[in-house]
Amino acid sequence: MRMSDLIMKKRDGGVLTDEEIRWMIDGYTKGDIPDYQMSAMCMAIFFAGMDMDETYALTMAMLDSGERIDLSGIQGVKADKHSTGGVGDKTSLLLCPMVAACGVKMAKLSGRGLGHTGGTIDKLESFAGFSVEMTDEQFIRQVNQVGFAIAGQTADICPADKKLYALRDVTGTVASLPLIVSSILCKKLAVGADVIVLDVKCGSGAFMQTEEAAMGLANALVEVGRRAGKKVVAVVTDMDEPLGATVGNAIEVHEALATLRGEYRGELMELCLALGTQILRESGVAADDETARAMLEKAVESGAALERFAAFVKAQGGDSAAVYDKSLLPLAPVRKDVLADRAGYVKHIQAEDVGLVSMHLGGGRAAKGDDIDPGVGVALYKKVGDAVAAGERLGTVFARTEQAADQAAGMLLDCYEIVPEKVERAPYVKGVVK
Amino acid sequence: MRMSDLIMKKRDGGVLTDEEIRWMIDGYTKGDIPDYQMSAMCMAIFFAGMDMDETYALTMAMLDSGERIDLSGIQGVKADKHSTGGVGDKTSLLLCPMVAACGVKMAKLSGRGLGHTGGTIDKLESFAGFSVEMTDEQFIRQVNQVGFAIAGQTADICPADKKLYALRDVTGTVASLPLIVSSILCKKLAVGADVIVLDVKCGSGAFMQTEEAAMGLANALVEVGRRAGKKVVAVVTDMDEPLGATVGNAIEVHEALATLRGEYRGELMELCLALGTQILRESGVAADDETARAMLEKAVESGAALERFAAFVKAQGGDSAAVYDKSLLPLAPVRKDVLADRAGYVKHIQAEDVGLVSMHLGGGRAAKGDDIDPGVGVALYKKVGDAVAAGERLGTVFARTEQAADQAAGMLLDCYEIVPEKVERAPYVKGVVK
Repeated sequence: MRMSDLIMKKRDGGVLTDEEIRWMIDGYTKGDIPDYQMSAMCMAIFFAGMDMDETYALTMAMLDSGERIDLSGIQGVKADKHSTGGVGDKTSLLLCPMVAACGVKMAKLSGRGLGHTGGTIDKLESFAGFSVEMTDEQFIRQVNQVGFAIAGQTADICPADKKLYALRDVTGTVASLPLIVSSILCKKLAVGADVIVLDVKCGSGAFMQTEEAAMGLANALVEVGRRAGKKVVAVVTDMDEPLGATVGNAIEVHEALATLRGEYRGELMELCLALGTQILRESGVAADDETARAMLEKAVESGAALERFAAFVKAQGGDSAAVYDKSLLPLAPVRKDVLADRAGYVKHIQAEDVGLVSMHLGGGRAAKGDDIDPGVGVALYKKVGDAVAAGERLGTVFARTEQAADQAAGMLLDCYEIVPEKVERAPYVKGVVK
Repeated sequence: MRMSDLIMKKRDGGVLTDEEIRWMIDGYTKGDIPDYQMSAMCMAIFFAGMDMDETYALTMAMLDSGERIDLSGIQGVKADKHSTGGVGDKTSLLLCPMVAACGVKMAKLSGRGLGHTGGTIDKLESFAGFSVEMTDEQFIRQVNQVGFAIAGQTADICPADKKLYALRDVTGTVASLPLIVSSILCKKLAVGADVIVLDVKCGSGAFMQTEEAAMGLANALVEVGRRAGKKVVAVVTDMDEPLGATVGNAIEVHEALATLRGEYRGELMELCLALGTQILRESGVAADDETARAMLEKAVESGAALERFAAFVKAQGGDSAAVYDKSLLPLAPVRKDVLADRAGYVKHIQAEDVGLVSMHLGGGRAAKGDDIDPGVGVALYKKVGDAVAAGERLGTVFARTEQAADQAAGMLLDCYEIVPEKVERAPYVKGVVK
């Protein structure tokens, strides 16, 4: 078999066999197939596509390139969640305790953020003492006892995907449906949950900018995931603005806790209820969507979800008092309000640019290994569809210095698009594929 | 400027600016842009194409990546010829002396063949003592005195093309029109002739398999070449079988000489007359095609072209007696006839496979630097359209050993497709773009 022949086959619209795909991924992982051939193949796939058989074969070949996590020690149904990305996405912080309070286990492996904003682990490290370092045994034990755990990923899962993603990132081949599907699913399959719920973002700044494209991705993810023997559901959600009311690290934890306490209710809770409903129903603990949703609502109202969260922070060494006392969260001291420079309605908030504001304040990483400041970030009081008076507060910047705050405030104002005519907010959840 | 942005721009159908193309080619030549990005770009160009402005910019950027040959010391009009490839193509051996005898100078730089068959230089080295090593001064002086010279390429012309072609060869991105056009023309422009005639092959085994695709390539070559200030003509010719009656090295020289002596007349002379006509007319030494053709015919009939060839061989140190005495050409001693295994008409002769027969006999190179055997090769007596009786001779194999001859004879028979129904031979010259 020669890689150049496979490239030409795909280029000319041919269908690669399972054997050819395995040979290619094995060879690429080992370094026998050079980057320059793999990038040409990725571009050929971008244009010529891959059918479901090929996408499934690619997913399984990447899965088999590395280790798998053994979750067999966990009692009951195990669920996992993945989001295709989003600024201000703190969903895991709410969804895990809500679902766990309803009896479904969540065993999550998470990464640190690289890019504009911190990852879930960075956010959780806002709790003094919190750690994601634990042995496999500790991880399994905690999931069984608390209902969920969030650990750092140490096992060498899907090295093929790691290598391929880095290549795609610099060769204009990220936005290819079969490559996105296989990259997401191989990692989820390696972790090995029974139920996988996928949050597919749609809108400016997402992989998929139109609802149609996002639904196509959702359909492919569900089909390939089910073929691999998993219960997979995809929820297509809006990403025309940051998710929720905050972007940062400690400030996002604060929003998550306020939402779990019922003090605040917006699209963040809407999303968690939508994702959680799918998990409970697919897990079999709820017979239908209505029952599932009612169970999740009750877990919040009763305080059971918040209790789970506190138990989780404590189990992982964090100061769980901060769950109930927001003054214990390390929010940065210099605060500057951002005021609307005109009256009208919020039409759009450029999510990526809000992420950049947070990064410039010190809340994200420019390079792997950079330290991040958990206390900085932004709060957004006005979201898409809201009416705004001239001079009214749009948001607040949390910074370390006056200078940083001034600069960030100017940047944040530029993220807002305010128009004179009324803006109808589209439903947050655009569709569910199951 | 970031290469990944340029890749995405091209991928999404954008038009690259002159500045972007220059930056890319400069960066790639210097090694600042890695192969894996350039191969993704080539595949994006394969699918999204390039317009004439882009193709011209790419050609000029590759031209400017290296040295140019200074031909200003040559008196009169200087012409050059290029073929897009072909098994059995010994056109230069006839065309150069024919054109030179009519008063147009040919200053050719040639390479050694890599692949199935030898290159023009390999063929010429069948003359004992022949050398292509000469100084620039010697080269210019010979062209002025003899009318033509064929030297080995030593100057570092178009290093960008050298690097890019090697990459395209292993990444399935050879068959892209703008990449082919720029690769051919940058090298021709670096040599600097006033008139360039291009032989664009069409058919199985050629870059362009359909007449429509070949005409498209011919049009693009002429348009970009004229934009670069050259008189460019492209002749589209058939390549559904090897060119002429022989494939090898000394045996091709033998065919070229027999044709120049008027002993043999087939599509080889037809092609040389077609190409030569364009050169004489564009050079201004003939007012129209009829005059040009008559001049070329006369150069052959009068023996003037053959005399030029002998003078050329002598000037480059070769034994010119072999021009008049074929026994001095080093033809291999073991000969084996290939007989038709059925009666009918020749429909197709797989040119690449005939090239492989010659290579297996030792007449081509498997790797750069390999020695080749000038004496081996094949003669083909039956060509497409010819009637064949069962048991009639199709060709003869020239080999070093009986074993090699037997094996090659079997391979050669397999190259022939013989059908019961009469076969109409398509015209050899399919079109001229000027």
